[in-house]
Amino acid sequence: MLKNSLGLPETLTWDQGQFYLLDQTQLPLKTVVEKQETLEQVWDSIKQLKVRGAPAIGVAGAYGLVLGLQSQTHLEIPEFLAEMERQAAYLDSARPTAVNLRWGLDRLVNHAKTLAAEGHSTATKLHQALEQEAIAIHNEDRQLCHRIGTHGKTLIQPNMGILTHCNAGSLATAEWGTALSPLYLAHQAGVPFRVYADETRPLLQGARLTAWELQQAGVDVTLICDNMAAHIMSQGLIQMVIVGTDRVAANGDVANKIGTLGVAILAHHFQIPFYVACPYSTIDFATATGAEITIEERGAAEVTQFGQRPTAPQDITVRNPAFDVTPHALVTGLITERGIITAPYSTNLRECYEP
Amino acid sequence: MLKNSLGLPETLTWDQGQFYLLDQTQLPLKTVVEKQETLEQVWDSIKQLKVRGAPAIGVAGAYGLVLGLQSQTHLEIPEFLAEMERQAAYLDSARPTAVNLRWGLDRLVNHAKTLAAEGHSTATKLHQALEQEAIAIHNEDRQLCHRIGTHGKTLIQPNMGILTHCNAGSLATAEWGTALSPLYLAHQAGVPFRVYADETRPLLQGARLTAWELQQAGVDVTLICDNMAAHIMSQGLIQMVIVGTDRVAANGDVANKIGTLGVAILAHHFQIPFYVACPYSTIDFATATGAEITIEERGAAEVTQFGQRPTAPQDITVRNPAFDVTPHALVTGLITERGIITAPYSTNLRECYEP
Repeated sequence: MLKNSLGLPETLTWDQGQFYLLDQTQLPLKTVVEKQETLEQVWDSIKQLKVRGAPAIGVAGAYGLVLGLQSQTHLEIPEFLAEMERQAAYLDSARPTAVNLRWGLDRLVNHAKTLAAEGHSTATKLHQALEQEAIAIHNEDRQLCHRIGTHGKTLIQPNMGILTHCNAGSLATAEWGTALSPLYLAHQAGVPFRVYADETRPLLQGARLTAWELQQAGVDVTLICDNMAAHIMSQGLIQMVIVGTDRVAANGDVANKIGTLGVAILAHHFQIPFYVACPYSTIDFATATGAEITIEERGAAEVTQFGQRPTAPQDITVRNPAFDVTPHALVTGLITERGIITAPYSTNLRECYEP
Repeated sequence: MLKNSLGLPETLTWDQGQFYLLDQTQLPLKTVVEKQETLEQVWDSIKQLKVRGAPAIGVAGAYGLVLGLQSQTHLEIPEFLAEMERQAAYLDSARPTAVNLRWGLDRLVNHAKTLAAEGHSTATKLHQALEQEAIAIHNEDRQLCHRIGTHGKTLIQPNMGILTHCNAGSLATAEWGTALSPLYLAHQAGVPFRVYADETRPLLQGARLTAWELQQAGVDVTLICDNMAAHIMSQGLIQMVIVGTDRVAANGDVANKIGTLGVAILAHHFQIPFYVACPYSTIDFATATGAEITIEERGAAEVTQFGQRPTAPQDITVRNPAFDVTPHALVTGLITERGIITAPYSTNLRECYEP
C-alpha cells in the first residue's frame, strides 16, 4: 500500500490509468484499498463516503470522469464532449453540498472544451489531456494543503488545546488535510499541543478517521463525543477550534459537516477563536450566502442503526442533515493557501481571489 | 408486565417484598423486567444504568436498601442500624452525580433512626417501616412528576417544536417523567406539538428511551443526533427546550447529562427558552454552586465501542464525562412540583423550599 509523507495510506492513487481509493468506511478496523473499475462505481464510492472530504471528492470526481471516458475515445469529438458532460453531471449528482466535486468536474470539462475549440484532433488526445489535468488537480491539492498548513501553523501556540470536528485531514484531501495540515506542520516543528476530536455523529468521521490519522502520525489526540465539547471548553481546555469546509459562500458563510454550527456557537460563547481551513476551490463566489447552499439530507438508518443493529425504535421519524451553515460572523478567520482571511469576508475574499 | 397509565412498562415494581426493574439497557429492542435478588445486584443495576434517571435511582436505592436488610432482621437494633448505614453508603457509591440516590437513602436511614430513638422494639418492625417509607417515596415520585407536568404544561403552546436531551421521562422516574411530564399532559389535553429528541451519546438514552417512550405514548417525536440541534434551531423549528436534571445547586446551577450545557448555550444563542424540570429532591441546598458537583467520568469503551464492535482506533485517549453543569444564567426557569421558579434562583429556591 502506498503511503504519503505522513506515513498514512494514500487517499487516492492514479497509476497509469488505474484508479484506487482507500475505503474510508472500513477505517480504523481495516485498511482496504479498492480499485475503481467503472464510472458507476466511483459515483457509488462518493455516495457511500468510501471517499469523502471536499478536496478529496474533487480529485475523485476528476479521476472518475477520466476513468468513465476511457472506453469512449472511439467517439467523434462532439459526441465525446457530450458524453463527458453527461458523465460529469452524473458524477456531480453523487453529493450536493461540497462545491469541490463540481469544481473539479467543471475544470476538466472546460479544459476539454477549450482544447477541442483550439482544434485538438482526436478524442484520444482529449482524453490524455483530461488525465493530465486530473493528475494536476491531485498534485495541486497536495501543495494547497501544505500551504494552508504553513499559514495555519502560525496560530498554534505551545500547549494549546485544539478542537476539531469531523475529518478535514489527510484522508479528506490528497495529503496533509485542510484543518489538520497546520497541526501536522506544528507537530513536525516540535510544538506541543493537544487535539480534541469530536466523534462526529452519525458516521463517526472524527472517531474513525481524525483520531486514527492523528494517532498514526504521533499527534496527541483525545476523542470526545460531540456533546462533550461544551463541557471541555467550559473547563478551559480549548484555546482554538479548526475545522474544514465543504463550501464557503461569497459572504464568508461556511457549510461544513453537521455539528460545525454548534461548535462555532460554543466557541463564540467561550470566546475561543474559530478558524475554517480550505483551499480556493472551496470558495464559491456563485453562492452569495449560506442560505443558498443545498444541505444534503441522508438516510435515517445512519442515525437509527449501528452496523445493522438497531439503536432506536422501529419506524421512528428521523432528521439527518449531513451539513449545516455557520454564519460568517462566527468565523474568526479562513485559513487558505494564500493566508488567513478575516472579516469583512465579502470584500476580503474578492480581493484575495478575484482575477 | 405491569404497565403504567401511559401504557409504558413500570420502571420499578415492588411487590410484597420482591423488587423488579425494567432493564433499560435493553430498550428499545427488548422489554425485559429483571428481578433484583441482592443488594449487590441493585448496586450493579444502578452502576450499569439498568435503572437510571435521578428520581428513579432515588426510588431504586430505597428499595435496594429494604431488599438488602431483609435478611438482617435477626439483628439487635444497634447492629441493624449500623448494617443499614453500611448498606446505604455502599448503594450511594454506585453513582456520584445525582443527588436523589443519596436523598432517598438518607430519608430511609433517618426514618429508621428516628423510629429507633422513639423506642421501636425490633429490627423486623424497623424493616417494615423502611419498606413502607420506600413505597411512600415511590408513590410520592409519581405524584411529584404529575404536578411538575401540570405546571409545565402551561408553557406549551400549539404547534411548538420542543427539544429535549437524554431521557427525563417516565423511564427516569416512577411515572410521567420530569421533562416529559408536561409533554404527556399537553398531549393528553390535545395540544399539538412536535418533540425533537437528541440521541444523547454515548449511551443513546434519547434514541433508545425518549424516542421510544414518546412514540409508545403517541407523541409526535423526531430523533436527531446531538450535533444537529444547532441546525434544527437555526431553521426555526424549536420554540422551547425542556430537560431534566441530576442535581440543582443552591444558586440554580444545573447538573445534567453530558451535552445539556451545549444545548443551553445554543438555546441562549437562538433566544429559545431553556427549562429544567425536577422535583424538590433534586435541589441540593448543601451544594452552593455547580462547581462543587462531582462529575462522574465513565469508561472509554462507552465511546469507543458499539455493541462490542470498535468504532475508534485501539488505545485512543478518551474523555467520557457523564454530566456537565449549566450555569443558572442560562436557565429560563425550573419547573418543579410547586410551580415555575425563575431567577434570582438563590433567593427564590430558598423561599420556595426552605422550611
